[in-house]
Amino acid sequence: MKSDIEIARSIELKKIKQVAENVGIPREEVENYGRYIAKIPTHLIDEEKVKKSNLILVTAITATKAGIGKTTVSIGLALGLNKIGKKAIVALREPSLGPCFGMKGGAAGGGYAQVLPMEKINLHFTGDFHAITSAHNMISALLDNYLYQHQADGFGLKEIIWQRVLDVNDRSLRSIVTGLGPSTNGITEESGFDITPASEIMAILCLAKDIDDLKRRIENIILGFRFDGCPFTVKELGVAGAITVLLKDAINPNLVQTTEGSAAFVHGGPFANIAHGCNSILATKMAMTFGDYVVTEAGFGADLGAEKFYNIKCRKSGLQPKLTVIVATAQGLKMHGGVSLDRIKEPNMEGLQQGFGNLDKHIRNLRSFGQTVLVAFNRFASDTDEEVETIRRHCEEKLGVGFAVNNAFAEGGEGAVELANLVVDTIEKKPSEPLNFSYSENDSVEQKIEKIACNLYGASVVTYSIHSRKIIKLIEKMGIGHYPVCIAKTQYSFSADPKIYGAVNNFEFHIKDIVINNGAEMIVAIAGEILRMPGLPKEPQAMHIDIVDGNIEGLS
Amino acid sequence: MKSDIEIARSIELKKIKQVAENVGIPREEVENYGRYIAKIPTHLIDEEKVKKSNLILVTAITATKAGIGKTTVSIGLALGLNKIGKKAIVALREPSLGPCFGMKGGAAGGGYAQVLPMEKINLHFTGDFHAITSAHNMISALLDNYLYQHQADGFGLKEIIWQRVLDVNDRSLRSIVTGLGPSTNGITEESGFDITPASEIMAILCLAKDIDDLKRRIENIILGFRFDGCPFTVKELGVAGAITVLLKDAINPNLVQTTEGSAAFVHGGPFANIAHGCNSILATKMAMTFGDYVVTEAGFGADLGAEKFYNIKCRKSGLQPKLTVIVATAQGLKMHGGVSLDRIKEPNMEGLQQGFGNLDKHIRNLRSFGQTVLVAFNRFASDTDEEVETIRRHCEEKLGVGFAVNNAFAEGGEGAVELANLVVDTIEKKPSEPLNFSYSENDSVEQKIEKIACNLYGASVVTYSIHSRKIIKLIEKMGIGHYPVCIAKTQYSFSADPKIYGAVNNFEFHIKDIVINNGAEMIVAIAGEILRMPGLPKEPQAMHIDIVDGNIEGLS
Repeated sequence: MKSDIEIARSIELKKIKQVAENVGIPREEVENYGRYIAKIPTHLIDEEKVKKSNLILVTAITATKAGIGKTTVSIGLALGLNKIGKKAIVALREPSLGPCFGMKGGAAGGGYAQVLPMEKINLHFTGDFHAITSAHNMISALLDNYLYQHQADGFGLKEIIWQRVLDVNDRSLRSIVTGLGPSTNGITEESGFDITPASEIMAILCLAKDIDDLKRRIENIILGFRFDGCPFTVKELGVAGAITVLLKDAINPNLVQTTEGSAAFVHGGPFANIAHGCNSILATKMAMTFGDYVVTEAGFGADLGAEKFYNIKCRKSGLQPKLTVIVATAQGLKMHGGVSLDRIKEPNMEGLQQGFGNLDKHIRNLRSFGQTVLVAFNRFASDTDEEVETIRRHCEEKLGVGFAVNNAFAEGGEGAVELANLVVDTIEKKPSEPLNFSYSENDSVEQKIEKIACNLYGASVVTYSIHSRKIIKLIEKMGIGHYPVCIAKTQYSFSADPKIYGAVNNFEFHIKDIVINNGAEMIVAIAGEILRMPGLPKEPQAMHIDIVDGNIEGLS
Repeated sequence: MKSDIEIARSIELKKIKQVAENVGIPREEVENYGRYIAKIPTHLIDEEKVKKSNLILVTAITATKAGIGKTTVSIGLALGLNKIGKKAIVALREPSLGPCFGMKGGAAGGGYAQVLPMEKINLHFTGDFHAITSAHNMISALLDNYLYQHQADGFGLKEIIWQRVLDVNDRSLRSIVTGLGPSTNGITEESGFDITPASEIMAILCLAKDIDDLKRRIENIILGFRFDGCPFTVKELGVAGAITVLLKDAINPNLVQTTEGSAAFVHGGPFANIAHGCNSILATKMAMTFGDYVVTEAGFGADLGAEKFYNIKCRKSGLQPKLTVIVATAQGLKMHGGVSLDRIKEPNMEGLQQGFGNLDKHIRNLRSFGQTVLVAFNRFASDTDEEVETIRRHCEEKLGVGFAVNNAFAEGGEGAVELANLVVDTIEKKPSEPLNFSYSENDSVEQKIEKIACNLYGASVVTYSIHSRKIIKLIEKMGIGHYPVCIAKTQYSFSADPKIYGAVNNFEFHIKDIVINNGAEMIVAIAGEILRMPGLPKEPQAMHIDIVDGNIEGLS
C-alpha cells in the first residue's frame, strides 16, 4: 500500500472556497491561507444550528506507542456518513511539530482517511501554534523585563509560575537558568520550557467563547505571587491587549478537506496527557453550524481525552454529544492482554480476550457519563476474521454495545459505511442522555481528583505531595476551587505508571504538582512522572523527512 | 494628522490577485494568505528581466533612536515613480515582532507611505519568521538530543556554537544554562537565545538562490567542533532535509500592496546591526522581474546596511544598483551636529550645518563603491523652509549630488514626485558604475575587516580579542577565508560606541568575537557591545497595543 503522503499527493484537492460553499459557508467569508486552507470567522457560529446538530465523540482504548488510529477513525466516520448521504463534518485538533519530527510522525489521519493538505497541516499550517508560542513567550519577556526594570522600585515576586514554550521536543529546555552574565541580562532565575500544546494560552484558545472572552482570560493568567501571597496577573502587567492582538487570527477555526473532499475543521490542539486535549470549542461549534453530523475526537485513551471532553469542554460550552464511539484495535487489546509488543501482530486469541478488560473499563466509564457507546474496530491488514468476530461478539453480546468495523484507512468512506449506518441508527433510536458529570463544581479540588482517579481510573487512594497540598490550600483561599480539574498523566495506563497496561485497579494515585490555569479556568493536577516537554528518541523522525524534487517525504 | 494605523485602516485595499495582475504576475501563481497577502513562487523569477530592471538602493545617514524614515522614503519613492507613470515595485525586509512590541513599534513605513495590511505585516505576516524560529530551534533540539543519545557511544563535542532563537526582545534569554535537573533532561550546557533576525537561517533564506541552494547551505551550517577540531555540521546530524521542509513555503517572497495599491514585496529580514540587513535576494529579483524600477532598502545607516548590501548581497547575487538614495532628516543632522535629543525639533541652523559631516562621510563611502548618489530629504512638519534650502545647497553645490524633498509621509506619492523625477533623470543620465567592492574575496579576514573599518568607518586601527584571533586562524585552516565579512556593530555611530555621533574618525575598532556562518557563507565579526538579543525598555510598546471593537490600536 502507498504511504500516507503518497496517498495525500495522489488526490486532487478541491479549492477550499468550493469545499466551504458545499457546506453552506459563504465564499466571501472564507479567508484563504493558500489554495486549500482557510480560516472561517467565528461570527458565523449559529447557536441555534449548533443545538440541532448531532455531535459524536470519538475516543479510544488505552494507547499503544503506535497509536490506535483515533484520528483515522474520526475522519473515516465522517467520510462514511457523507457516503451514506449525511452532511457530516469532522473537527480535529492540530498536530504539533514536536512529535511530528520526533517519534510519532504526523497527526492528520492515515491511509485513505486523512485531512489534506496533510504536509501543511502537519507543519506550520495557518500559524496558530506559532502565534500561541509568540504570545506565551512575549508574556515571559515582558514579565522578566518588568521585574528587571522595577528592581529599584522594590517590586519583586516571591515565586514565578509562568514558564516558556516551544513547539519542539527539547528535553534540554525542561529546566534552565536564565538571566546569567552581566546584570543587564536581567535577573537570574530558574525557568523552563514546556511544549506549546501545554501552554495555558493553548487551553484558553480552545476554551474561549470569542475574542473578548479570550482577552478576559488572558488578563486573568497568574504569572506568579507577590511577597504578600497575592497573585500577579497579565492584567497587572498591562499587556493583555497586546497579547490578544497576537491571537486575533489564531482564534478563527481552520477549514481543510478530507481525502474525499468533504469539509474538516482542524483547530487548537493541546495533548490530553498534559492538557485538556480537545480541539477548540469554536471549531466544534463552527462544524455544528454547517454540519448535521459532527465527528470530533478527544486525545489518547478515554480516561484522558473523553473525561476532559465531558467534564471540561462540554461543561464549559454546553455541548451534549449524542454518541461516543470508542476505537479499539486487535493489537492494542493484545498488548493490554499481556502480549509483548513485538508479538502483537500475530494471531493470539487468548491474549486478545485477556485484553478485553481495558475496553470494558473504558466503556463502563463512558456509560457513567450517560453516553450511548459504540465500538469502532479499526482494522489492520494483519487482523484475522476470527479475531474481529470474537471482539464483535464480546461487544454485542457481553457488553450490549454496538460494534462496527472501520476500514477507512484502506478503503476511505466506503470502508466506514457499516460504522456510519450504525452511528445514524443509534443516534435515532438511542441517543445519549444529558451529560452526567463525574464531579460537581462545588466539590473540593481533592474530591474532584478523587472522583476521577478512584471512580474512573480505578485508584484505591489518591496521595498528594506537600507542594500539591500547599497549592490546593491556596486555590481554596483564592476562591477558585470551583474550576474543573485537568489531570496530566501518562496516556499508556489507567494509572500514572506508563508500564502498567490493561485494566489496572486498586493502585495509589500520586499528585506530584498542581498548576493553576486561572485564565483557562482549570486546575491542572500532575500525576506521576508525566513531562510537559517531551524528548526526542535516538533516531528521530526528522532524520527521515526530506524534500525531493519539490515533494516532501517522510511525513506520515 | 491621523496615526499610521488609522491611515492604514482608512484605505480600501485591493484584492492581492488584482495587485499581482496589475504588474503581470499570473493570477494562478498567486497563493493567497488572506485576501491581501500572497506568496509568489520563486520559479517566476526571470533573470533576463532582472538584468533590464533598474535597481535603486535606499539607505540613510546614521540612525537616531526615532529612525530616519528609510522605509517610508523607500515606499514613498515607489509611490512617486508610479505616480509619474513608471512601473515601480518596492522590496523591503519583514518587521520583527521583538522591536514591534518593544521600543520601535512597527516597521512597515509611515503616514501615507506604508505597505498594507500593516497590522498583519507587523505581526505574524505569512509566518516566515516563525518558520525560521522553528527550523533553528529544531536543529538545537536535534543537536542536544544527538549529544544526549550518543554519550554512551563516546561521541561528544568540544564546543557548541549553535544558539537558539526567538522573535522577542528577551534579555533574560541571552545567557542561560540548559539541561538542568535529572540526567534525562539532557546534558547540562551553556546556551543562549538570539533574536530570530540574527539567526544564520535568516541569512541563508535571504541569500539562497533557490530551495536546493537553501538545503545545501543548511547542510553546511557548523553546529560545533569535535575534540579533534573538525566541525560538526547539520549534514552530519542528518536532518538538513527536514529543516529545509520547514522552510519550503518561507522561501517564497510575500506580495503586499502600498497605500496607493501598487505592488510591494516584503520578505526576509535580518537587522543590519547584527546581520546583513537586507530583504531576500529572491524578493529583489522577483520585484525586478515584474517592475521596471525596483526600490529596495538596506537597514540602518549606510555604514551598516549599504556596505553589506553591496559587499555581500550584490556580490553574491550579481545585482548592480543603478543608483543609491541616501535619506537624511533635519533632526538627524542636528543630532549629529551635537544638538541634544530633546532640542532637535527646534530650528537650529548652526547645529544642522555641524551635522553635515555625517552625511558627507556616508556619501563619500557610497561613491567609493562607484555609486551615483542622491539625497532624499525626509521632511517632518517641524522643519523650516530655510533648513531645507540650506541642506539642498550643501548637497547640490558643495557635494555635487542631487537633492529632493520627500513628503510622501504626509502626501503619499504626490509628495515624492520631485524625488521620483530626479531618480529617473539621474538613472538615465548618470547611472552608477559597476560595483567596486571594498575588499576582494582573496583578502584575509583581517584585511577585509580593516578595509571596512578604516576606509569606510574611519577607524585608525582594528584590534582583536584573543578569542577572535583564534577563530580567524580556524577560518584560515578551514579554507573558508574567502567568505565576505558581516560586521555586527551599533547602528548609532560610525564607530562601535553608540554614544559617538557625527563623523567620528581615528578611533580604535575592537572585534570582540567572530562567528562562522558556514551556511550563509559569511564571517560575522562582532564589534563593541552590540547584542544579538535586544532587551525591552521600561515601558514597552506592548503596553499601548490593544484590540478595541475588533480593531488593533497602538501599532505604528
